[in-house]
Amino acid sequence: MTDPFVVVGGDAAGLSAASKCKREDPDREVVVFEKGEWVSYAHCGMPYYVKGEVESLSDMLSLSPEQISERGIDLRRNHEVVAVDADAETVTVERGGERFEQPYGDLLVATGAHAVSDPIDGADLAGAFTIHSMDAAAALRAFLTPPAEIDPDEVDGAGEFLDRELVDEYAAREPPEAAAIVGGGYVGVEMAEAFSAHELDVHLFQRPERLLPPFGEAPAERVAETLRENGVTLHLDTEVDELVGDDGAVAGVVADGERIPVETAVVGIGIEPNTALLDGTGVELGVEGAVAIDDYGRTSRENIYAAGDCAEMRHTVTGEPDWVPLGLTANRAGRAIGQSVAGTPTPVGDIAGTAAVKAFEMECGRTGILDHERAREAGFDPVSETITAGSRSGYYPGNAETTVTLTADRGTGRLLGGSIAGEDRAAIRIDTLATALEGDTTVAELERLDLAYAPPFSPVWDPILVAAKVLNGTLD
Amino acid sequence: MTDPFVVVGGDAAGLSAASKCKREDPDREVVVFEKGEWVSYAHCGMPYYVKGEVESLSDMLSLSPEQISERGIDLRRNHEVVAVDADAETVTVERGGERFEQPYGDLLVATGAHAVSDPIDGADLAGAFTIHSMDAAAALRAFLTPPAEIDPDEVDGAGEFLDRELVDEYAAREPPEAAAIVGGGYVGVEMAEAFSAHELDVHLFQRPERLLPPFGEAPAERVAETLRENGVTLHLDTEVDELVGDDGAVAGVVADGERIPVETAVVGIGIEPNTALLDGTGVELGVEGAVAIDDYGRTSRENIYAAGDCAEMRHTVTGEPDWVPLGLTANRAGRAIGQSVAGTPTPVGDIAGTAAVKAFEMECGRTGILDHERAREAGFDPVSETITAGSRSGYYPGNAETTVTLTADRGTGRLLGGSIAGEDRAAIRIDTLATALEGDTTVAELERLDLAYAPPFSPVWDPILVAAKVLNGTLD
Repeated sequence: MTDPFVVVGGDAAGLSAASKCKREDPDREVVVFEKGEWVSYAHCGMPYYVKGEVESLSDMLSLSPEQISERGIDLRRNHEVVAVDADAETVTVERGGERFEQPYGDLLVATGAHAVSDPIDGADLAGAFTIHSMDAAAALRAFLTPPAEIDPDEVDGAGEFLDRELVDEYAAREPPEAAAIVGGGYVGVEMAEAFSAHELDVHLFQRPERLLPPFGEAPAERVAETLRENGVTLHLDTEVDELVGDDGAVAGVVADGERIPVETAVVGIGIEPNTALLDGTGVELGVEGAVAIDDYGRTSRENIYAAGDCAEMRHTVTGEPDWVPLGLTANRAGRAIGQSVAGTPTPVGDIAGTAAVKAFEMECGRTGILDHERAREAGFDPVSETITAGSRSGYYPGNAETTVTLTADRGTGRLLGGSIAGEDRAAIRIDTLATALEGDTTVAELERLDLAYAPPFSPVWDPILVAAKVLNGTLD
Repeated sequence: MTDPFVVVGGDAAGLSAASKCKREDPDREVVVFEKGEWVSYAHCGMPYYVKGEVESLSDMLSLSPEQISERGIDLRRNHEVVAVDADAETVTVERGGERFEQPYGDLLVATGAHAVSDPIDGADLAGAFTIHSMDAAAALRAFLTPPAEIDPDEVDGAGEFLDRELVDEYAAREPPEAAAIVGGGYVGVEMAEAFSAHELDVHLFQRPERLLPPFGEAPAERVAETLRENGVTLHLDTEVDELVGDDGAVAGVVADGERIPVETAVVGIGIEPNTALLDGTGVELGVEGAVAIDDYGRTSRENIYAAGDCAEMRHTVTGEPDWVPLGLTANRAGRAIGQSVAGTPTPVGDIAGTAAVKAFEMECGRTGILDHERAREAGFDPVSETITAGSRSGYYPGNAETTVTLTADRGTGRLLGGSIAGEDRAAIRIDTLATALEGDTTVAELERLDLAYAPPFSPVWDPILVAAKVLNGTLD
């Protein structure tokens, strides 16, 4: 039998595909190669684990290797797929220095992405991290926790996989008193909260003028205000020159020629798709070097699929490919490919770039196209309005100022994107706008949506409706 | 000049229309007749005022009479419109026994609705209330508050309009120790929370088997569970025979032949549209006796509009008229009519029956058509699924069980309606489904929505997506 469904990568996309395929077609052989120890873990939870809000690493595993085996999936950890032969329909697998060939009937490339840290000198010093692996998260938490308070059970929750040597090394170090965060995206903002919880002096450096660029101006300002209120020192429009070391460990950060003493640093300046194993296969790459796929997740080579952080997706507003690596996208595309491979062709769906982030008590959501330059490139004539309105009836306790930005196309009135920021249930409200985008809703239609009104949850005119009224007035 | 825009009713629909018309066409004469003292008040806030969570009655006024005057609106309180002559285009207005005729160019009937209490014997006893007027709410709060704790400033927040005699009478009475609530709809459920806050022994009687019938089975069960956990005694499937009195005041409630001693009662068994002033005018009534209107809020007689709780609206799922009296509907339709009357024809929009309610910590939302009989009457072949899933990532603190029911049409897969119940941001999530209904979304499309994922707000698969996956599996 040489018809197995072979999956490269044992995380969200890969295991969703493997599970769905096995459920729909239990007789199919399904093999998952994972180059590391860890499988099926929640990237997005790591800052909360470092903060201490999530107790144990094992809490962030969706599935244990045992559960994966019970599903009938042949999971091989510590197996790295290093090459693909698309003509012979085989992959080359490396394990502990040994290599072997594995034939496939269908192949899913779900290799994820890796954190970029190279441009920062000193990012290889001890005490400098990218929060893109479970071992790094465990090491950082051990570093932040005073030795007397380290609970081995917590760190050990997933002891089976853990790089214990690394963790022990950091546990033995003196906890840091100040931290540099390089990059003001999701990881940077979430890590500011995490470091603050450990009472560190936190410096956040962001090269652009604004935090969280995909969220646009208004949420960025509200998050900046919140971070400052919580004692985080923001260095916006500031490039980090280097991390400087003392005895091989981080001792300071240099930016704009000024050196600030810090003992730890997190570099979160972006990620890049992992596609090296496709070199020379003829599998086409697309936006930002991610694997190009069609509506069903198929690459340009037969029987090879791609999904998750390594693959592009079609944007629901522009209709063009885009690369927005996020968790739901990986799970949804993986699941669809699993179903397709099992015999029921299923589209992977579009993305709207819907995302949410929390910074202390400030919640933000964003969806669609907010940036005017980007909108113009896609052929739209963008117009935006920003309003601030109450999250609940004004007289009801807990009412909080909620800032909504909507962007629409002037000619057609079509909603292109939006953002929401506020402290009371603001982030989850973005789903309303994401749903409106899928329906090609105009701002006039948005204004007439029959949304819920009840004093504890929303004023008569929800902030989204207020924004639609104002933007619609501009479009008239 | 006999071309004024005359509005009957000084609440949400009437004042929205008057304000919008005056803003768009400042030269137009706009007259609003309100039969009572109170204008522009928030019905939906009253249970929270009675509870004590909203401090003052005046907090619930959107606009003061002075603000209304500043907008150039000629507001006449204590003026009751008792008849309409659609041929002569005049209304008959009564004020303190005097009558006069007022000509109109356009007329808006925004007369609202009145609480039904007649079928309950004893509903006229002292201590029995319907929570449908500000004076009643003030009297009940005065009744519940021990005399020493009554803060005259709070009750007096809107002293100008208050029926002080009524309030003083109740303030002088011994506070009740037990309460009967007749009716398990919004008012009933919210009043259970309000009475409990004053530490009363609360008995809630509901004639149907379930609380909150428009929300369907799953939210009703979760609310029932919450009410019981909070000490409320539920009498479901139970008809109240009568309220019995002692010395003219409520002393007990009799149901199923059993008498339970209570000293106060709230009757919340429904409301009916106020349309008596249209008798003999030829203005057609529609669903449940509400005024029939077209897409622009126009009645069957020229230049007469209707909006708010007295008027029907078109349902977005069935395309047929429906009567779902809610606050946003009134505001939106009033605003649209004000704009139409000022010269820019503006549709009043459809309704989806979107509603939210809070019972202690339990939040519920509903939208569209959930009831199978109703769906079949509208020509659909309904199928429903109910799931319970986490509101956040399982490892993130505050994750709460969220119950979602979706109803779809088997033939087309079109989403017909849904409900959500849970303790963590559950109610506001209903807006996502309300938006999906407006876009004629299928369940397969719903399953592929790019909703926000971030551990503090939503798991990778939001409960809505989980429900869509399960229902889609049923439809396949």
